[in-house]
Amino acid sequence: MFDYKLLAALAAVVEQGGFERGAQVLGLSQSAISQRIKLLEARVGQPVLVRAAPPQPTELGRRLLNHVQQVRLLEGDLQQWVPALDEEGAPERLRVALNADSLATWWAAAVGDFCAERRVLLDLVVEDQEVGLKRMRAGEVAGCVCASPRPVAGARSEPLGAMRYRGLASPAFLARHFADGVRAEALARVPAIVFGPDDQLQHRYLAELGVDGAFLYHLCPSSEGFVRMTCAGLGWGLVPELQVEGELARGELVELLPGRAIDVPLYWHHWRNGGELLGALGAHLLRYAGATLVPIAN
Amino acid sequence: MFDYKLLAALAAVVEQGGFERGAQVLGLSQSAISQRIKLLEARVGQPVLVRAAPPQPTELGRRLLNHVQQVRLLEGDLQQWVPALDEEGAPERLRVALNADSLATWWAAAVGDFCAERRVLLDLVVEDQEVGLKRMRAGEVAGCVCASPRPVAGARSEPLGAMRYRGLASPAFLARHFADGVRAEALARVPAIVFGPDDQLQHRYLAELGVDGAFLYHLCPSSEGFVRMTCAGLGWGLVPELQVEGELARGELVELLPGRAIDVPLYWHHWRNGGELLGALGAHLLRYAGATLVPIAN
Repeated sequence: MFDYKLLAALAAVVEQGGFERGAQVLGLSQSAISQRIKLLEARVGQPVLVRAAPPQPTELGRRLLNHVQQVRLLEGDLQQWVPALDEEGAPERLRVALNADSLATWWAAAVGDFCAERRVLLDLVVEDQEVGLKRMRAGEVAGCVCASPRPVAGARSEPLGAMRYRGLASPAFLARHFADGVRAEALARVPAIVFGPDDQLQHRYLAELGVDGAFLYHLCPSSEGFVRMTCAGLGWGLVPELQVEGELARGELVELLPGRAIDVPLYWHHWRNGGELLGALGAHLLRYAGATLVPIAN
Repeated sequence: MFDYKLLAALAAVVEQGGFERGAQVLGLSQSAISQRIKLLEARVGQPVLVRAAPPQPTELGRRLLNHVQQVRLLEGDLQQWVPALDEEGAPERLRVALNADSLATWWAAAVGDFCAERRVLLDLVVEDQEVGLKRMRAGEVAGCVCASPRPVAGARSEPLGAMRYRGLASPAFLARHFADGVRAEALARVPAIVFGPDDQLQHRYLAELGVDGAFLYHLCPSSEGFVRMTCAGLGWGLVPELQVEGELARGELVELLPGRAIDVPLYWHHWRNGGELLGALGAHLLRYAGATLVPIAN
């Protein structure tokens, strides 16, 4: 069998983003962890890490990490029967990639009880869809919430439901720019707020109104910052309904064009052989999301 | 003088994260923008871009970008006198790096009126302090809000005030783990929530209570997600007071140890020769933050 002390060293360096932190987590000196990585590389006959800041796994390193993650999950299954097998008696860690808006809205309430009951600690990674799936493929995460339905090799995907986004702005913003009502073509000439280069929601909203081409925008890569910027009247933007129930009820945000929405479907991606714990998390998420998100349109 | 068409091509590719998007923004074909980059490299006699995904500027590329940013700001100053000089008549863009918690709390209200009055669009970049300053040094941003007082070469830093963090948890979390009151040494054995590898606030909180070494934690790299996870009872964590006034007032979050807080000072970093607009933004930020944040302790 593999020498898992060496594989654990590789996992610690990559997960902690450096040799020093990796060593700390394992309670080793930095030279001891370097030694283990070198020994691992000698055994497999090629590099497993690119020594950059932070260190990156090579192609082979990724495969090894993927294997370590799967072994850990399988150990987790076993542990409920023979807890003494786990050297540290530590809770299980699950590494999951998800989109920023899910983390800012329904995710915490969905997993709260599950994590408490099953003693699970989460390593959350915020990524938009393609990158999340890339991390899945690389074995860096055990599960992923994203808008793409297509699973990577060895994984499955299941529909969670859709997040409903509405085009919103502050009353002051509307009064300043649209005293006579919102006209679609005028929307492109006042600032929008866009989450990042991959956020096409504002483009879609305008395109569905028949407005194509360039428009003015602020870039704000933070879900909470996005809402605050919208409330402060910096621009209009597409915001998840779930995130601003209070702001809408209090009139701090209002709809640009009442009734118009964009639904973004979300899928839960997980390894087929991810073990019992990952399977239970998935079942839990599907149940909760089904009751919270809107149905995915066909 | 430099050929600014070539420099603008470099800036577009780096700012948009790719040749295709860079070309779109400039209204060029992808081959035309590649040509411009190659011509620029021929002129300066070395590469300006590392062709990775996304493309990264070389050391020289960074210097050129820094120069482009400064020229843009200086053009902005001129433009209020001779608006016709600007080919597109577009509003000014300012690129600013700031920490996630500022963006999730005071930032939007601080800049709202300024951006509307001066017709400024913001490109915000969320970075923790060292990375924010690195971007400043590289000329990728014109200003930076971070916890470090030391300015990079050519820049100045001014104190904004401090954000006050409190150790919080949900009432259900406290009831489950601390029915008899919170004891410091027991805190390390129930899950905390940590923003990322650079977030040392939970460590400091425990250290100030005399608890050193490892503790259990979830990783959650999102300000809003952090609050939602705390409210959902997944763990305890240090949260900016400004972000949870509502949750505290409604009793959805409570203090672990009432009265205990950690203050994190914040500084505004900006180029010395950043032009009038950047100077005005700085003055505006200092005034607003002075009224919102707590004073920095000496």
